[in-house]
Order: sequence, then structure tokens, then C-alpha cells
Amino acid sequence: MTRWKLIVEYDGTPFVGWQRQENGPSVQAALEDAVFAFCGERAVAQGAGRTDAGVHAAGQVAHVDIARETNGDTVRDALNFHLKPAPIAVLSAEAVGEDFHARFSAIGRAYRYRIVNRRAPLALALGRAWHLVQPLDAGRMHEAAQSLVGNHDFTSFRSSICQAPSPVKTLDRLDVARLGETIEIVAEARSFLHHQVRNMVGTLKLVGEGKWSAQDVTQALAARDRSKAGPTAPPEGLCLERVTYP
Amino acid sequence: MTRWKLIVEYDGTPFVGWQRQENGPSVQAALEDAVFAFCGERAVAQGAGRTDAGVHAAGQVAHVDIARETNGDTVRDALNFHLKPAPIAVLSAEAVGEDFHARFSAIGRAYRYRIVNRRAPLALALGRAWHLVQPLDAGRMHEAAQSLVGNHDFTSFRSSICQAPSPVKTLDRLDVARLGETIEIVAEARSFLHHQVRNMVGTLKLVGEGKWSAQDVTQALAARDRSKAGPTAPPEGLCLERVTYP
Repeated sequence: MTRWKLIVEYDGTPFVGWQRQENGPSVQAALEDAVFAFCGERAVAQGAGRTDAGVHAAGQVAHVDIARETNGDTVRDALNFHLKPAPIAVLSAEAVGEDFHARFSAIGRAYRYRIVNRRAPLALALGRAWHLVQPLDAGRMHEAAQSLVGNHDFTSFRSSICQAPSPVKTLDRLDVARLGETIEIVAEARSFLHHQVRNMVGTLKLVGEGKWSAQDVTQALAARDRSKAGPTAPPEGLCLERVTYP
Repeated sequence: MTRWKLIVEYDGTPFVGWQRQENGPSVQAALEDAVFAFCGERAVAQGAGRTDAGVHAAGQVAHVDIARETNGDTVRDALNFHLKPAPIAVLSAEAVGEDFHARFSAIGRAYRYRIVNRRAPLALALGRAWHLVQPLDAGRMHEAAQSLVGNHDFTSFRSSICQAPSPVKTLDRLDVARLGETIEIVAEARSFLHHQVRNMVGTLKLVGEGKWSAQDVTQALAARDRSKAGPTAPPEGLCLERVTYP
């Protein structure tokens, strides 16, 4: 039995999310079905980040255990062959030790959230960005974001169905930058609570619009109450960029 | 009667191209239908670049003549409303003089061609890039491209159905650069022959693979014979970025 570390890219649009569910196609089920088509084994694909419906990944990491003797190039190519036509690509497959766990061994996750801030609707970025018409001040958003960086109780930014044992997380980076009509938000941490990035983005939007001050964000964090922070930003702007391991 | 200059973005995937055709939906017909839905007038939308099926635009320019008294914001918003759900967005609408012609007044066009150069199939860039597995040397491609810059007879890079009166064009810029697994090719000229960018890209691919030298490109250009240059690169990697006017 060999454990394979897979780096996986996907367009989240047609999926109910990473995790296998009864109500529609998931990335996890597609990968597990591809493993079965390749070697006839029913493996469980463990993912580093359980992305929601509509959320994309450029560098999701998963692991699967396969008994068949094979090699990384074959695993990658065979899974990609059997994944077609789903918009999922296995970028690499690497043999790792049995102590490697895609989710529990990860020491860093990087997400990117993209906003397109303009009057006209989206054509090229449709399904890949949050379309916001009202002009946003990205500089103020970045400034306010810095109060969220560090070790905090993120209850105010946590989904009510979050299963994490503790709401305390260390946010290493939350940068907001504008390039033309695009605003990119980069969030890095060892791990995130459910909906944490989208709830932080939904809150920073209020700052960008001038409705909230940086101090309002600080107070929302201190309140430890989900109802005190902003709404959840839509999934299509979010992309899991990278997962890091020791 | 007012002439409106429109800057238009579109995902070319579902269209037979810019130009109205009998065999499927075109960007031109979608715009003209949106004008009719807005003001009940049958206007002809003249485009600066007649992009082929599958080719995208971030900054196509078109003009339409509308008799109804209105203003730019209304034209833009009304066309966008009526264009839904087609992946076409009117970024701006500006009143211009009747001597303005989107195609004939243009003094510059900029295209971007994107290659994703990796083993794994495309997921996030599907339909937006040319997927090439064999490693390409972007530096050699850039070097070879420079022999195409300048005033030349581009017959070797011209589609057999091209309607331009002359095959002589001045290519102002042809830059090839790699960023990670992405290779971007930027082409700028006052105007291009039909398929010229895609035929140049298909030829530079041969250089990137090491099958052709820079001298082979020079000889292909000098031959003034379409059969002496490389194949036509697929449309989905191409995007009309920008059209400039005096």
C-alpha cells in the first residue's frame, strides 16, 4: 500500500464542494471514482481544505492509499484520464510516508479572494470573482484587515455549522490590493474556520464601501458573535491557492 | 442620430465569432439584438476586430448608431441588461462623432495569446489557453519572434480566406514571456491579417519545442507561402486586449 500526495486544481462551479455529498457531484467523489477506474480500489481521498460549493482550487492537496504497485507519473496521468470531462486536474502525484495526512500534516493554507469592482457585469471573470459595483477603497480595506492578523478568537467570522474544536486561530496574513478594477485579498494561516475567509471578505467589503471603519472590524472581532460581523462573501471569488507541509 | 463607441468584453466560447453568421450565435448579433430590445432600432454593430469562434475579448471596440436621445450610462446599462445571460459585457459607451469608425479609425490592436505548458490537463484555464505538454523554451520563442517584428509581407501567416487588400503589415511588438507554467505572447500592430496571430503562435511553438530555429522562422516569412509556416494555434488561447484610436 502506497500513500500518494496529490496536488489538485479544479473549477468549483459544477461541484457541491470538495466533500462527498448525496445532493450532487463533489471533487472528492470524482477523485475516488477515478482511483477506482484506474486500479479497482475503493480509496478515500482526504483533502487539506474542504472547499465549499463554487469555491475553486489551484493547489488543493489530497492523499489516497493505493495497493497497486505503480509510480507517480502513472497515478497522475491515469487519474487525469479518468477524471475527464470534469474540470479537475491532478497536477502531481508523489509517494509519501504513511504518517503524511493531507489535512492534519498541513502547516499552512493560502487562499485568494478576487473581487471585480466595476459597473459592467462580468464576462471573462464570470464564476471566478465577486462582482461589486460600488467603488471600494482597497487601501482602507487593507488597513482594517490588519486588525484581524494574529492569534484571535474568530467566533465572529465562523459559520454556525463549523466543526472545529476551537474558534481560536492564528491568521498570518490578510492583504488587500487593487490592480485596475480587480481587488485581490490573500489570506494565509495554518488553518481556517468554516467560512472564515468569506466572512472576513464580506466584512472588509463594508469597510471598502465606507460603511464601516477599521475600528468597527476590531469591535466585531472582539464581540465573538457571528451576528456582529459582515455577511458571507459569495463562494465564486475564492480559490485555495496552496497548502504547505513541513 | 448619435454614434456610440462601445468597449466590449466577452468570453468567446459559446459564439461562432464576432461576426453575424447563419450557423450560430455571434457577439455582433447579440449586441444588435440588445440595441433593438433597448430602443426598437435595428442598428449594425461595427467591430474593430472580427474575432473568430472561441476567441475572447477584454477590450473589443464597436460602434452603433442610435436615434433615441439617451446618454452613455443608460446605453451601457441597458445593453448589459438585455445581453443577459450571454457572457458579453459592455464596459463603457461614449458618444463619438460620425467620422468615428470602430474598425477604420483604429490605429492599434493588441492581442494576448496564452499557453499553459504542463503535463496535467487544464481545469481553471479550460477554454482560455492552449494546453501544450512538451516543455517550451520561451526565451528561444521570444528571440525568434523578433524577426517577425517590422514591416513585412505576412503571406506565410495569412489565412487563405483573408480578405485584406494587401498582405503587407507592420508588426510593432511580438513578445513571448514565461511566468511559471504560463507562456504569454503579446502581439501589437495597427492591424492584423486573418489568423495572423494564431499562425505566428503556431510557428513559434515549433521553435519552443526545438524543432525550428529562429532562422527557420525568417525563411518561412521570406517564402510568402502559407504552407511554409507552422500550423494555426487554437482560438481559445487568444484574447483581443485593446484597440487604440488617435
